[in-house]
Amino acid sequence: MQATILTVGDEILIGQVIDTNATFMAAALSAEGITVVEHLSVGDNRMAIMGGLERALQQSDLVLMTGGLGPTKDDITKQVLADYFGAELRLHNPTWKRLQKIYARLGRECTEHHRQQCRLPTGAKVLPNEHGTAPGLWLEKEDQIVVSMPGVPHEMVYLMEHEVIRRIQKRNLDAELLRSVTLLTAGAGESTIAERLERIEDNLPENMSLAYLPDTGTVRLRLSARGQVEALLQAQLDEYRNHIEGALGNLVYGYGNDNLASMVGRRLEEREQTVATAESCTGGALGHMITIHPGSSKHFLGGIIAYSNDVKMGALGVPEETLDKYGAVSEETVTAMAEGARERLGATYALATSGIAGPGGGTQEKPVGTIWIALATPNGTRTKLLRNGKDRARNITYTCHHALNLLRLELTDVPDPAPQPKAKPKPKRKPRAKATPKVDPQPEAEATPKAPAKAKRSPKAATKPKPKAKAKPKAETETKPQEEVKAKPKRRPIRKK
Amino acid sequence: MQATILTVGDEILIGQVIDTNATFMAAALSAEGITVVEHLSVGDNRMAIMGGLERALQQSDLVLMTGGLGPTKDDITKQVLADYFGAELRLHNPTWKRLQKIYARLGRECTEHHRQQCRLPTGAKVLPNEHGTAPGLWLEKEDQIVVSMPGVPHEMVYLMEHEVIRRIQKRNLDAELLRSVTLLTAGAGESTIAERLERIEDNLPENMSLAYLPDTGTVRLRLSARGQVEALLQAQLDEYRNHIEGALGNLVYGYGNDNLASMVGRRLEEREQTVATAESCTGGALGHMITIHPGSSKHFLGGIIAYSNDVKMGALGVPEETLDKYGAVSEETVTAMAEGARERLGATYALATSGIAGPGGGTQEKPVGTIWIALATPNGTRTKLLRNGKDRARNITYTCHHALNLLRLELTDVPDPAPQPKAKPKPKRKPRAKATPKVDPQPEAEATPKAPAKAKRSPKAATKPKPKAKAKPKAETETKPQEEVKAKPKRRPIRKK
Repeated sequence: MQATILTVGDEILIGQVIDTNATFMAAALSAEGITVVEHLSVGDNRMAIMGGLERALQQSDLVLMTGGLGPTKDDITKQVLADYFGAELRLHNPTWKRLQKIYARLGRECTEHHRQQCRLPTGAKVLPNEHGTAPGLWLEKEDQIVVSMPGVPHEMVYLMEHEVIRRIQKRNLDAELLRSVTLLTAGAGESTIAERLERIEDNLPENMSLAYLPDTGTVRLRLSARGQVEALLQAQLDEYRNHIEGALGNLVYGYGNDNLASMVGRRLEEREQTVATAESCTGGALGHMITIHPGSSKHFLGGIIAYSNDVKMGALGVPEETLDKYGAVSEETVTAMAEGARERLGATYALATSGIAGPGGGTQEKPVGTIWIALATPNGTRTKLLRNGKDRARNITYTCHHALNLLRLELTDVPDPAPQPKAKPKPKRKPRAKATPKVDPQPEAEATPKAPAKAKRSPKAATKPKPKAKAKPKAETETKPQEEVKAKPKRRPIRKK
Repeated sequence: MQATILTVGDEILIGQVIDTNATFMAAALSAEGITVVEHLSVGDNRMAIMGGLERALQQSDLVLMTGGLGPTKDDITKQVLADYFGAELRLHNPTWKRLQKIYARLGRECTEHHRQQCRLPTGAKVLPNEHGTAPGLWLEKEDQIVVSMPGVPHEMVYLMEHEVIRRIQKRNLDAELLRSVTLLTAGAGESTIAERLERIEDNLPENMSLAYLPDTGTVRLRLSARGQVEALLQAQLDEYRNHIEGALGNLVYGYGNDNLASMVGRRLEEREQTVATAESCTGGALGHMITIHPGSSKHFLGGIIAYSNDVKMGALGVPEETLDKYGAVSEETVTAMAEGARERLGATYALATSGIAGPGGGTQEKPVGTIWIALATPNGTRTKLLRNGKDRARNITYTCHHALNLLRLELTDVPDPAPQPKAKPKPKRKPRAKATPKVDPQPEAEATPKAPAKAKRSPKAATKPKPKAKAKPKAETETKPQEEVKAKPKRRPIRKK
């Protein structure tokens, strides 16, 4: 089955809103093994909608549309659909009664406008919309299907999940199946991962493909298989997922829709442990990343956003001498912050961040993008130095991901099979119980914070010692943020085999 | 001039990435008065790209493309362009030399792959890309222009801003101008604003339009005018902007790309004042919203993320009795949090949040979406009760926006001309220096926290006393989150006049 996504709305066309509807619908169709051949966005006018519909139906059996179903005069999708399918608009009584009920409950009266909204194309299957007033419409003509949904994203999502997908599944029984698994990685960039997976990728069966989806400090890997037999596809996916996990070791932290914060949260909950934060350069973003997940109150106690030095001293107990001698952006300060937060907030672990997020504020010695993170644990504190670009938002997200990854590695037992890049043995700087710091000038190529304090994360359990993997001094140039020097972020996009 | 946006990439088609490139390019073209007639996304295959290009050039003079310029075998846009324009791919020496230089600096050698990447269509104008390895391409044929850019968003943005837009401006000199101004509002929903602006909208000149772009707790209004004479357009925009501001009063807080946090920050800086935060249900999001802006360290001292009650007591000094008697989600607790943060962090103001962000955790008395916010000031503390839906992320954002708006109103002198909805006089609950709390069960319809402590924000300076405006008990039903009951979020989208 081939599909086209058709979104309607001037607000999309002029770039006032991002068309997330198209993405959602496309992902949902792809998951069903349906090939999406095109996304098309057109304006709120009859000719454009009609033209889009015609093109869509020339090239596909299924068209998913959003937009233009509302009560105002620029909502004309319905009329165009009626015309296209040779139908009329007639008052749809159940919809009209439902609307009246909703408005009665709200203490408002329905107007003629609202009544107009309930005039639907004859012959259309009406898909009830529990999240709004405009229902979805399912129309068919000679084995071709057009589904029209409201443009409000959560109404579209509701209709897709409750009405549309299962109807499509019924129609799509004889289609080739597409099954996939998504592996989540953190701690290495796309190109490092690609190098480690080179041999596996080169030997992927014809019906399988691997796609890379890099984000700031994390990379998702989507492994897909096409075929007729569910069980075979699952077996294939399991087999190659195992290969990938073997090659990537503890870079892989989860699957599917998981993410670093929820994964760390689950681990903490299992262990009945807690975490607190002490944020300078991330300014609350780390706390937010943790608490956006329902249930985070079980493992997250709270944090101190220590933006000013006074707060670092007062609320976290960072000694004034430390700040004077080493500065706010230093291993010493970030260590004191983490240890202060752990002690004062009474958590098992505490994560601290301090750095120059940019775009201004750097010095020769500490350029923009210089960021220290620390993890205070019951067995001492480990630290890590990140060197990044000048993009403030990216630096903040990147720092949060790296901090969460530091904690994730602390809570994991999977060894890292990767070669240790450039293992310059650094002398311990302080006699206190602290892991050796790790400079991270090439975030792409690194993954394994060394942990002398914990023996279980073996430092050199390399399975494929590819010396090549360490030879990329990326992101060294200060003027080139790390992402910009990545030769090609789209290095290995989706491969059609 | 008419334009089509053509984005290339399987990752877009299958819904793996959101096509933000299309939005950015569309907005940039619209700002130049160029009509975008369609967005089109196609896969990484020759037929699809060729087909998309043909359609685009049938309907427009300008095509902006992204994607498919990389070094891998699925990057085939260049070849398709060469074929379409009857050109060949030839090694472009300056690009090749540049690439070699970049890789030399990175300590890597260029491969044949990289050399292939530097083969560009003859006759194309090469647009240097300072942010990546693949340059942009500008091709022309019989007055039609095709611009091809890399799909990596920041590379595309760089090329648009440094190369493409000014070239388009040169070509577009005789076009009708489109000028616009964006007004930013907070404190009232789309429908309240629409009601207040009804008369103005009904009398807009033919060449003008007003678009609503609602976000969580804020609404942007884009007022546009088309015409030939710059000065006339500016005068028109000024005139109608004044009308709108008169009708909306202190709902309007800024213009253009500003936002609540940066606006509040600027005000604080002018006054040499500071703010601190005490966050429970927002978990760091408020601090993040403030500190995402460069320079926020000048007015933001820091905050306490008081997720657990222990942290509320320990770090903020909330009395245990208060938590026991009223609970964490209460006016009393949020007041103590704000006052504790203000005192302990030494800021002029402190904002506190405590509520049930959802999706679970509600009770009959305090359903999900019940959220208290407080602003501690030198003259006492004001509080506000929000009632929202069950969407956790929305509740968090909404709470942050309302909290920032509370501070924004404290720092502003513009009176509110709106009618006071349902002004049930509430008895003061406590003798302490605190403004009366405000229940906000219909965030749409409300905007003005009453401020007995400050006389300048007059409580009843209504200009258009429309009794209708208060009659919408939206979001009352617990099962219907506030956004869902908004009859039509797309109520008044872009109007073509």
